[in-house]
Amino acid sequence: MGIVVQKYGGSSVADAAAIKRVARRIVEAKKDGHDVVVAVSAMGDSTDNLLDLAGEVSPLPPARELDMLLTAGERISMALVAMAISDLGYSARSFTGSQAGVITDSVHGKAKIIDVTPGRISTALDEGHIVIVAGFQGVSRDTKEITTLGRGGTDTTAVALAAALKADVCEIYTDVDGVFTADPRIVPTARKLDAVTYEEMLELAACGAKILHLRCVEYGRRYDIPIHVRSSFSQLEGTIVAGSIDDQQHQESTMEQAIIAGVAHDRSEAKITVVGVPDKVGEAARIFEALAGAQINIDMVVQNVSAAATALTDISFTLPREDGQTAMGALAKIQAEVGYDKLLYDDQVGKVSLIGAGMRSHPGITAKFFAGLASAGVNIQMISTSEIRISVIVDQAQVDAAVQATHTAFDLDADEIEAVVYGGTGR
Amino acid sequence: MGIVVQKYGGSSVADAAAIKRVARRIVEAKKDGHDVVVAVSAMGDSTDNLLDLAGEVSPLPPARELDMLLTAGERISMALVAMAISDLGYSARSFTGSQAGVITDSVHGKAKIIDVTPGRISTALDEGHIVIVAGFQGVSRDTKEITTLGRGGTDTTAVALAAALKADVCEIYTDVDGVFTADPRIVPTARKLDAVTYEEMLELAACGAKILHLRCVEYGRRYDIPIHVRSSFSQLEGTIVAGSIDDQQHQESTMEQAIIAGVAHDRSEAKITVVGVPDKVGEAARIFEALAGAQINIDMVVQNVSAAATALTDISFTLPREDGQTAMGALAKIQAEVGYDKLLYDDQVGKVSLIGAGMRSHPGITAKFFAGLASAGVNIQMISTSEIRISVIVDQAQVDAAVQATHTAFDLDADEIEAVVYGGTGR
Repeated sequence: MGIVVQKYGGSSVADAAAIKRVARRIVEAKKDGHDVVVAVSAMGDSTDNLLDLAGEVSPLPPARELDMLLTAGERISMALVAMAISDLGYSARSFTGSQAGVITDSVHGKAKIIDVTPGRISTALDEGHIVIVAGFQGVSRDTKEITTLGRGGTDTTAVALAAALKADVCEIYTDVDGVFTADPRIVPTARKLDAVTYEEMLELAACGAKILHLRCVEYGRRYDIPIHVRSSFSQLEGTIVAGSIDDQQHQESTMEQAIIAGVAHDRSEAKITVVGVPDKVGEAARIFEALAGAQINIDMVVQNVSAAATALTDISFTLPREDGQTAMGALAKIQAEVGYDKLLYDDQVGKVSLIGAGMRSHPGITAKFFAGLASAGVNIQMISTSEIRISVIVDQAQVDAAVQATHTAFDLDADEIEAVVYGGTGR
Repeated sequence: MGIVVQKYGGSSVADAAAIKRVARRIVEAKKDGHDVVVAVSAMGDSTDNLLDLAGEVSPLPPARELDMLLTAGERISMALVAMAISDLGYSARSFTGSQAGVITDSVHGKAKIIDVTPGRISTALDEGHIVIVAGFQGVSRDTKEITTLGRGGTDTTAVALAAALKADVCEIYTDVDGVFTADPRIVPTARKLDAVTYEEMLELAACGAKILHLRCVEYGRRYDIPIHVRSSFSQLEGTIVAGSIDDQQHQESTMEQAIIAGVAHDRSEAKITVVGVPDKVGEAARIFEALAGAQINIDMVVQNVSAAATALTDISFTLPREDGQTAMGALAKIQAEVGYDKLLYDDQVGKVSLIGAGMRSHPGITAKFFAGLASAGVNIQMISTSEIRISVIVDQAQVDAAVQATHTAFDLDADEIEAVVYGGTGR
C-alpha cells in the first residue's frame, strides 16, 4: 500500500494508442491500492524532431534554449498521459520537473540532480491523485533555469523520485522483458535474470548493456531503491535490481544462484596504442594528463613490462570511438615531449565482458572464459578485470562469436528462446 | 531608447525560415537602441495538432492538463526564436509565462491576467539580453497552476508586458499591413488607417474586425500603451491604436481627420425573435434572465412598442451562433411562464457596423448610412447604436454588398488597391 514509481520511455508513449495502454497500466497499480507516481519520456521520436527544428534555426543553439525547447517534449507526453488516465475515471495531475521539485546543478544538457523536494507531489498523492512527472528535466538551484539531465535522464528522474518519496519500488517499463544473460539479438537462448545486484547491474551497464543507464543504477544503489525492469508490452515479471554483493543475506541466497549474471558487449569503443614509450617514471602520467586535458574518458589501459634490451614499452587504451580523433590530436602534440615512436588507431574492436558476483569466490572463471573464447577461435587483444568482472578486447567482427561462446561455456543458455526484443530508444 | 514590446503570431513563426525572418526583425529593433521584449505564439497550426492529439487520447480532457499540453507550443517557438537571435550574434533569453511573471486567475483555458511581476525580464534586459516570452500563458496566483489566456491571449500578453515594463510602444506583428477601413477581401480599395483611438478600435473589434482582440485593446486603453499593428512581412508603418476620443488634443487633431474610422462586419451571429410577448413589466427581464442563466452573451436587442390592440410585442436579439441551440432550449423552458407565442431562429444574418469618433459631432451620419444601404438594395432587420457606432443586422447574403455600399457612401475608398491580405490565424 506504499508508493510505487513507474517510468515509461519514449517507445511506451509513442502515440495515442500507446498512451492509452500506459494509462490502463498505471490505473491497475492504483487499483491495487498503491499511490502511483509516473515519470514519462517524450513521445517516440519527438525529441529528435525538436532537435531537427533547432538545427534548422541555428547550427549551434545555446544550451539554455535547447533545454527550454527539449523540455516541451515531456510536457506534451505527461499531459496526454494524465488526460488518458482521466478518461478512465481516475484523477491525475501532471507536473514539470521544476514543479515536481527536481533540483539540479546548472549544467545545461547534462545536469545532475542534487536534490528532490517533492512537496507538490506528496500533496497531490494525499489528495488521491495519480501523479505524472516530466522525466529528463529539472530546475537549477542557483539560477532557477530549466535544465535537462542528458542520457538516461528519465530513468534517473524515476529513481530519484522513488528515493525522495521513500517508494517501495521503482518500476522501469521498457520494450524488453528485463535484463538478460546476454543480448538476445546475439544469443537467442539468453535467459532473463529474475534478480541482479546493483554492483552487477552497474558492471553490465558500464560494459554495454543498454537496458539501464549507469546513473540510474548508481542512484538506486545509493538510496537502496529496488528497481524493477520490465516490459510495458506484457504482464511478465521482469528483473529486480536490488541488494549488494557485500550483503551477507544476499551472499547466502546467491550461493545457490548463478555464479555469472551475464555477458555484456560493447562495439562503441576504439583502441589507441602508443608505441615505443621510454620506460621511465612519469611518462604514462604525461600521456593520460594530455587525454584528461582534452576531456576524454579512458576505459581500459594495458601496459606490459618493457623488453630489457630496448627500455621501451607500448601503452594501449580504449576510449569512446567518438573521441578518437580528439585523442589522437592531443597525443600528437606531446610526441616530442614524451618521445614515443608512433600512434596506432584501431576502431574495429569490441569489448566482451563476463559479469557475476559469484566469480569472487569461484576460482577458475578466468580460465574457463578464455578457453571458451579460444574454442571459438577468438584472439584476445587486451584484458581488464574488476572484482566481479572480466573484460576482453577482441576484433569487432568476432564479438558475436565471443559472446555466444562465453554464454555457452558458462551454461547460461535457456532450453528455449525466451526473449522478445522490440527495439527502441533510450532517453 | 526605451523598451519596445513586440508580438509575433503563429503565422509569423510558422517554420524555421519564418522564425529566422522574425529574429532579424527583432535584432533590427535592438540595433536601433531599444530594449526589446517579444511575446510569441505557437508555430503555425501546432496548437491544432496538440488539440488533435488530446482528442485522440480523451474526448473531454481536463482543462488543467489541456493547459499543460498547449503551453508546450509557445515553449517550442520561444526557444527557437531565441536560438535564431543567438545565431545572429545577439543574446536572447526565453521565459515561460510563469517565469515572466504573468499572474492570472485560476480559470483554465480562459484565464485573466491579474498582475505582471516582470522581475526576471527586467534583470535580463539590464544584462543586455533580448527577452522572448511565451504568449498565451501564465501561472495562477492562488494555485500556482499553469493557465492559458484563451483567444487573443498572445496579444494580451504583449500589451500586459508593455504596461508592466512601461514600454514606449507595443508592436503587434500580423499578416496584414494594419487596420483597414473595411475588410480588404470584401472591399479591395479599403484604406489602411494610420491612427485610430482605443474606443474606435474597441468598437471595430467588437463588431467583427479580427485584427486585434478586444481584451488586448482594453488593456492598452486602461494603461495607455500605444499599440502599433503592422505586418511582419513588410517594413511599412502600420496603424497606431492610441489616444481617447475624450482627449482634447486628440479631438483637435482628429477634427481634420476622417469622421469615420471604418466599416466592420460579422457573420458569426444568429438572431432569435420571441414572438407575441405580453407587453407588461418584467417579461423582458424574465427572458434575459433565462438566457443569462444559460451563460449566453447577448449582443443586440430590439423591442418595438406593441400594437395597442393586442398588447403583445416581439423581442429580437442576436447572439453567437454557436450558442443558438442552447438559447432556444432555455427559452422553450419558460414559454408557459412568459406566455409568449413562438420562437423564430435565423442564422442567415450578418452585422454591418459603421464606426467613427467623428459621428458624435457630425449630424446626418445615420441617414447617409441607411441611404447607402438602400441604394444597394439591402434591407435592414435590426438597428443598434452607441456614441461612436451604428450597427445593422441584414441578410447574410447581403453583407458584402452592404459593406461595399457603406464604404463608398462615406468616401473611404482609396485611389488604388492598397491591401495585401496574407491569411492567418488568431491566437
